[in-house]
Amino acid sequence: MTIKLYGIHPVLEALKKRPRAVKGITLSRRAGKTIDPILKLASKTNIDVRYDGPEKIAKIAGSDNHQGVVAETEPYGLTEPDRLVARAGKENRKAFFLVLDSIQDPQNFGALIRSALCSGVQAVIFPKDRAARLNGTAAKASAGAIEYMTFCRVTNICAALDYLKSAGIWVAGTFADSRDSIYAADLTMDLALVMGSEEKGIRPRVKKSCDLLLSIPMAGGFDSLNAATAGAVVMFEVMRQRNKTADCR
Amino acid sequence: MTIKLYGIHPVLEALKKRPRAVKGITLSRRAGKTIDPILKLASKTNIDVRYDGPEKIAKIAGSDNHQGVVAETEPYGLTEPDRLVARAGKENRKAFFLVLDSIQDPQNFGALIRSALCSGVQAVIFPKDRAARLNGTAAKASAGAIEYMTFCRVTNICAALDYLKSAGIWVAGTFADSRDSIYAADLTMDLALVMGSEEKGIRPRVKKSCDLLLSIPMAGGFDSLNAATAGAVVMFEVMRQRNKTADCR
Repeated sequence: MTIKLYGIHPVLEALKKRPRAVKGITLSRRAGKTIDPILKLASKTNIDVRYDGPEKIAKIAGSDNHQGVVAETEPYGLTEPDRLVARAGKENRKAFFLVLDSIQDPQNFGALIRSALCSGVQAVIFPKDRAARLNGTAAKASAGAIEYMTFCRVTNICAALDYLKSAGIWVAGTFADSRDSIYAADLTMDLALVMGSEEKGIRPRVKKSCDLLLSIPMAGGFDSLNAATAGAVVMFEVMRQRNKTADCR
Repeated sequence: MTIKLYGIHPVLEALKKRPRAVKGITLSRRAGKTIDPILKLASKTNIDVRYDGPEKIAKIAGSDNHQGVVAETEPYGLTEPDRLVARAGKENRKAFFLVLDSIQDPQNFGALIRSALCSGVQAVIFPKDRAARLNGTAAKASAGAIEYMTFCRVTNICAALDYLKSAGIWVAGTFADSRDSIYAADLTMDLALVMGSEEKGIRPRVKKSCDLLLSIPMAGGFDSLNAATAGAVVMFEVMRQRNKTADCR
């Protein structure tokens, strides 16, 4: 099984990060100069390039939002929770994992991956079922950030959280009704941050697996942020707290 | 000129906030129970309700993302910068305005409005030209938050910023290349926060009008957040700093 990446950024980052996984690229001549960096990299790495019309590219990509480029690539590699923990230990830095409890919208999934990469998250853990997949839509929404993230797809989120806890990692869930603010909590320890689904938040069983339940204080009466936005706010708060003591620009 | 609001949240919030501005609602019987709260409020406020098929509703809404409901309403009210300043002064709290320098994507515009409302922004200032409009798409992306925000549409962003500065308000622009971090800056004073467009950031002339240029520190080599996400991170940092001293939950 291959996946279809579409859009300038996702294809460009795939060519940079894992050129050998790119099986072929289809371009539209109408895309103009924006595809030049893709052509250059493809030629350097001897990747097969074909040309076709925008409609055909839309059909291959499964989206009109292709910017004149679609690439067929191998699927993203996956890792296991124990390897994440071992790696964080070796690198001698505090663990920071993002756990997505059934985020179903691929746009939100991609946006969360992008924010995760920018805020120092080391891996994104997500379930096999009832969840968005690592496909072209998620790659596009991540603006190519997906290429640089480590992913862990698990059968059972609760089991994964229990394993992380046994490895000494704190599990913090975001929960709108919690009285504990993300700003009052210490988020500088080894941490797995759990974000719930768009509609229902964290599931009750997953909630029970959390050491901490935290909310983002909101102004006024309007108390709901989009899942991807809420995730970004919390992840950047984690980074802010860590950078207060660590070396950062 | 009226606007067409579509989707459950935008229509529901419009009915709550400004029922007299709602000229009529068209519903799809297939929408099921999700539209019950809309029916209830419409009947309470004597608003004309019609039924039609999903295709017709999509045509009126100009979008397939209508969830079986579209409403025709008056456009959103607008105010002037001097009234914003006067009001902030009267309310005896620090000013917090969001200035959008040519955000063109209505999805980002709506998402920024939603984050602005949740983070205590008192008004969103945006230009007449080369900018997304207060339409149904922005309303949908804001999940109805648009109903509770104050808007100021100006001919010239630089002139508006100069006026705000003359009124004692600090103007802070976000600029990826700035060495000054949002976390090191004091954001508790009267503040107008300027966010640039998706592609090009803040325009050079607007940049010159800023008292401060601030960046969000990023992890790793991937240095770009989506405009709406970056905006949310900065706005919530403003709220965090203010709540440290003020009364907040």
